[in-house]
Amino acid sequence: MGRQHETVSFLSDYGLVDEFVGVVKSVIRSIAPAVTVVDITHQVPRYDVRAGSLTLVRAVQYLAPGVVLAVVDPGVGTGRRAVAVEVGDGEAVFVGPDNGLLASAVSMVGGATKAVSLTNAEYHLPAPGPTFAGRDVFAPAAAQLCLGLPIEELGDLVDPMTLMPGILPVPREEDGVVHGEVLWVDHFGNAQLNLGPDDVTALGDRMRVRMGQHTRTGRLRRTYGEIGPGEVGLVVDSYGLLSIALHRMSAADELHLHPGAAVELQAG
Amino acid sequence: MGRQHETVSFLSDYGLVDEFVGVVKSVIRSIAPAVTVVDITHQVPRYDVRAGSLTLVRAVQYLAPGVVLAVVDPGVGTGRRAVAVEVGDGEAVFVGPDNGLLASAVSMVGGATKAVSLTNAEYHLPAPGPTFAGRDVFAPAAAQLCLGLPIEELGDLVDPMTLMPGILPVPREEDGVVHGEVLWVDHFGNAQLNLGPDDVTALGDRMRVRMGQHTRTGRLRRTYGEIGPGEVGLVVDSYGLLSIALHRMSAADELHLHPGAAVELQAG
Amino acid sequence: MGRQHETVSFLSDYGLVDEFVGVVKSVIRSIAPAVTVVDITHQVPRYDVRAGSLTLVRAVQYLAPGVVLAVVDPGVGTGRRAVAVEVGDGEAVFVGPDNGLLASAVSMVGGATKAVSLTNAEYHLPAPGPTFAGRDVFAPAAAQLCLGLPIEELGDLVDPMTLMPGILPVPREEDGVVHGEVLWVDHFGNAQLNLGPDDVTALGDRMRVRMGQHTRTGRLRRTYGEIGPGEVGLVVDSYGLLSIALHRMSAADELHLHPGAAVELQAG
Repeated sequence: MGRQHETVSFLSDYGLVDEFVGVVKSVIRSIAPAVTVVDITHQVPRYDVRAGSLTLVRAVQYLAPGVVLAVVDPGVGTGRRAVAVEVGDGEAVFVGPDNGLLASAVSMVGGATKAVSLTNAEYHLPAPGPTFAGRDVFAPAAAQLCLGLPIEELGDLVDPMTLMPGILPVPREEDGVVHGEVLWVDHFGNAQLNLGPDDVTALGDRMRVRMGQHTRTGRLRRTYGEIGPGEVGLVVDSYGLLSIALHRMSAADELHLHPGAAVELQAG
Repeated sequence: MGRQHETVSFLSDYGLVDEFVGVVKSVIRSIAPAVTVVDITHQVPRYDVRAGSLTLVRAVQYLAPGVVLAVVDPGVGTGRRAVAVEVGDGEAVFVGPDNGLLASAVSMVGGATKAVSLTNAEYHLPAPGPTFAGRDVFAPAAAQLCLGLPIEELGDLVDPMTLMPGILPVPREEDGVVHGEVLWVDHFGNAQLNLGPDDVTALGDRMRVRMGQHTRTGRLRRTYGEIGPGEVGLVVDSYGLLSIALHRMSAADELHLHPGAAVELQAG
Repeated sequence: MGRQHETVSFLSDYGLVDEFVGVVKSVIRSIAPAVTVVDITHQVPRYDVRAGSLTLVRAVQYLAPGVVLAVVDPGVGTGRRAVAVEVGDGEAVFVGPDNGLLASAVSMVGGATKAVSLTNAEYHLPAPGPTFAGRDVFAPAAAQLCLGLPIEELGDLVDPMTLMPGILPVPREEDGVVHGEVLWVDHFGNAQLNLGPDDVTALGDRMRVRMGQHTRTGRLRRTYGEIGPGEVGLVVDSYGLLSIALHRMSAADELHLHPGAAVELQAG
């Protein structure tokens, strides 16, 4: 018997309009009735493995102990592997496609100690088509892990070194210009950069911020509430990264920022 | 005492913006604190009994045992009956309006063994107005059933034969042309037809697909991932029905497909 | 030890796209694993304290006993207090910002018997930035209250009289004209007014309804289903207030109604 778990934290790009999320949770509950599923989000943009990966990284250190089920899976039904990845010798297990979605979060909580490819069809639901892996492959695996099934029972062991790596964009500094990019635009329109406060210490509290064709003056502010009307604020956000924000408006809408957009900072 | 249940699976057209779903779940929890509510979806299009019915049919075989609460109820407060429908001699109970919403799902899991009209006001919440049946009539009924209240206590027995039937569109074949229609467009823009693979066996792997004014060549593909760029794919989806799909794009958007749209298939 | 609670009812303006809601629930579950979180809604319009307050008032009498966590918090990180407000000598505790969001709901269930400012950093999560109070301050407080931590442990006692009051718009009658306003537009487009049936008794079953530039004839109807095509109906809704509705259409869209819009009623 492996360790038992009481929580499945669940992220996907299924959206909340169709019954996909409800069916996955129903499958888990049918197999492991005592388990609670906590939804992280199901509105990762369709097929956007990078966005899903970043969401998981932001959330992972706060998740309840147990199984993490993550499904953003444009390659479902093709050659990509379905995997379960153990961290901390079984403290937590990540279940999802092997397409880079899980990698950064797994690293953040200590790295994989074991991984299997979910090839044991005994733990798959019989399916009329091969296309709903969340329901037929991932949910049963997550539920079985909660019940204490040893991870090895779910399929063939694979070398964790062969798992698809995650890709986090790295900032660079050149001639006094810090080149970053937008990682994420949140519900309030704040644009999180791949830059921490240390990356801009040399620039002072006031800096020039180039976004596409436009350059604006940005001010380091301690909170969103301290940003003045009309001002472009740079706030260390709740994840410890710099975020571009406006006074009670969407910075993303006003400044045409989106995930992946280049942002250049320099003194001024 | 009737059988007790630990799960209410809940579907509605309430949306997730207002507090409707939260209030229904709160009422259930206030009456039956040990029950878990699993949301199937609450974004059935407003008043769309057909769409709600099809969603329930797709989900029903995967639901955890217990009570199914379904509310898409354009006739709330008028003459339509509120009902509880038992299947499998009490293994599961469906609660909702008697307007065809429940019928197809009830059939799929074996048919009604008993039904009552929810007329016993002792189990209704006192309400300032007659318009929120989910909160005042259906939620208390679902919760009481979970506690083991015999279904007969909820109101008058009705003949299951008098329940409003569901309507599933039937395909037909004429002069080598298979006439189907779109049942459902999912989050990824795939358009599920009311056709299984057997309905098109005679047409071969390559066929002409007429949708409105346009005719395209369609190819049977085993997975969404195998559909080539620019190609119209026909995939047996995870429910065993044919689905029209494109390479990582919304087939519904590109091909102007919507629920109810006619699709004609023939060899070619 | 204080009283223990098994339910946190959770309302916010976080939306369901980001991981905010999931992270708050994960923090609660990590601290108090036996607690169930019931979502009221997370789609209160951004920063809209009035809308959040009204949603809470509509829901509060139906909530399961326990802790109510409400976060609509445009002033996060500035001077506004974070508070826990006890009602009924501990039967329920409201947790959220002290900006008027909680006040009307607290009044409706009997008024505050005790309040604290959440100043005890021992029960805050360590945070890289000061901006996610839901995760770092409110969620741990809600979870600790569920475990039975006495409310006084969470910070400094404050006089409940100093809590920010809620503002509910009051109707008035002048020269036979009843002046009301729209409180809320629901998912179905019905526009709830700040008027009960008693406020319009003198006007009869048929009245003139002035909305902006337009005046229409309104008819009192017992249910939405009884409103005829083309007719403007006035229905006592499920909260006991008058609501403007149309026959299976959105009254708000057709009649240009929105929260805060003035509506004048007179006999005719």
